[in-house]
Amino acid sequence: MRCIRMRVQYDGTNYHGWQEQPGLATIQGTLIERLATILGERPAVEGAGRTDAGVHAMGQVAAFRTDRAIEAARLQAALNSRLPADIAAAEMAEAPLHFHPSSDAAGKHYRYRIYRGPIKPVLQDRFVWHWHRPLEAEPMRAAARLLVGRHDFRSFETGGSPRENTEREIFRLNVTETGRELHVDVEGDGFLYRMVRNLVGTLTEVGRGHRTPEWVAEALEARDRAAAGPCAPAKGLCLMEVRY
Amino acid sequence: MRCIRMRVQYDGTNYHGWQEQPGLATIQGTLIERLATILGERPAVEGAGRTDAGVHAMGQVAAFRTDRAIEAARLQAALNSRLPADIAAAEMAEAPLHFHPSSDAAGKHYRYRIYRGPIKPVLQDRFVWHWHRPLEAEPMRAAARLLVGRHDFRSFETGGSPRENTEREIFRLNVTETGRELHVDVEGDGFLYRMVRNLVGTLTEVGRGHRTPEWVAEALEARDRAAAGPCAPAKGLCLMEVRY
Repeated sequence: MRCIRMRVQYDGTNYHGWQEQPGLATIQGTLIERLATILGERPAVEGAGRTDAGVHAMGQVAAFRTDRAIEAARLQAALNSRLPADIAAAEMAEAPLHFHPSSDAAGKHYRYRIYRGPIKPVLQDRFVWHWHRPLEAEPMRAAARLLVGRHDFRSFETGGSPRENTEREIFRLNVTETGRELHVDVEGDGFLYRMVRNLVGTLTEVGRGHRTPEWVAEALEARDRAAAGPCAPAKGLCLMEVRY
Repeated sequence: MRCIRMRVQYDGTNYHGWQEQPGLATIQGTLIERLATILGERPAVEGAGRTDAGVHAMGQVAAFRTDRAIEAARLQAALNSRLPADIAAAEMAEAPLHFHPSSDAAGKHYRYRIYRGPIKPVLQDRFVWHWHRPLEAEPMRAAARLLVGRHDFRSFETGGSPRENTEREIFRLNVTETGRELHVDVEGDGFLYRMVRNLVGTLTEVGRGHRTPEWVAEALEARDRAAAGPCAPAKGLCLMEVRY
């Protein structure tokens, strides 16, 4: 038995998220299906992060076990030739047999892209949140500084299946501007359900001038989803890297 | 009667090109249809360039005449609120009544994007030609220099409906590199059917080392489509600007 680890990139627009669901196109399901045509068996493919529908990845990490002897480089080429245009296996290599992309992860880096301008950006439409009105980076930065560190992020978890432990650590939370785009880069040891999008939606409340940076600290303190801002749309989000 | 001129931007992936065709989604057809819901009449929308299926635009210019009194800025906002996510009216203004986007154009600038690398670029897939093998910019530049100027470009016209006069002037033809991307920027007074894509396909024959730069001059000289290289895929091409 061997474990194969891969870096997966995808445009998530046409998928119902990472996780396999019967009868729906998903990233995990597509990988399993295409690998099965090469391996002659359906491998159990585990991913580092269960990205939502419409969320993209440049650095998702996935792994599966197989007893087939095919060399990793050949397997990668075979898989890439079978994958649709919006999914790619960017790297593939042997990993320790007990490697688990999700539970072994030490950190994840997500980037959220906001496009500011009166005209919607037709060529970036799938990858950005289009923001028509003024959005100031500086107050967003001041608010972001208040969120860095180890905190109970319950206010930023969308309900449904709440975790028992809602404490997480954010290592960095940077707001940078590049032309009309504003990027929110967040790196942490783990994220609650929709946490990144809820953080971004909350920061935009500050950037648009509806709230002060200090309000974000109060929202965090409240440990109540209703105290924080709205959830930003999926399409602006991209899983950039997973660190081990 | 007034003439309204607009700059149109689109991701051409989901359209059968610019030109209206019954029963098919086209850029021109979509603009006419959405303008009709505002104006209460179907305007005749003329474009500067009839881009093919899958070709994009950042600076297509279009115009139509109407006797409705609605202000250009309000018309632009109304149109943009009705257009799908992949088409936008980036500018809209009054123009002289006899303005013709196509016949009045003094020059057009197209950009062709090639992505070089072993892994297909999933986030840029709709906008680039993915090139797996080595492709050298320097010999492409040498070949490009031989094409600049006024020439008979018959060797670069895809047949079907050949023009009587196949002479055109290329003002500039630049090959630049930015990371893994290679851009071919071409500006000229007009282009024959598929001329830009045929030029790019021909330049790649030189960039991959199959042909010398001088072969491109011979291909031009031959005035025969069979003497030049293949047609590059539509998706890498974007109409950047039309000059008047």
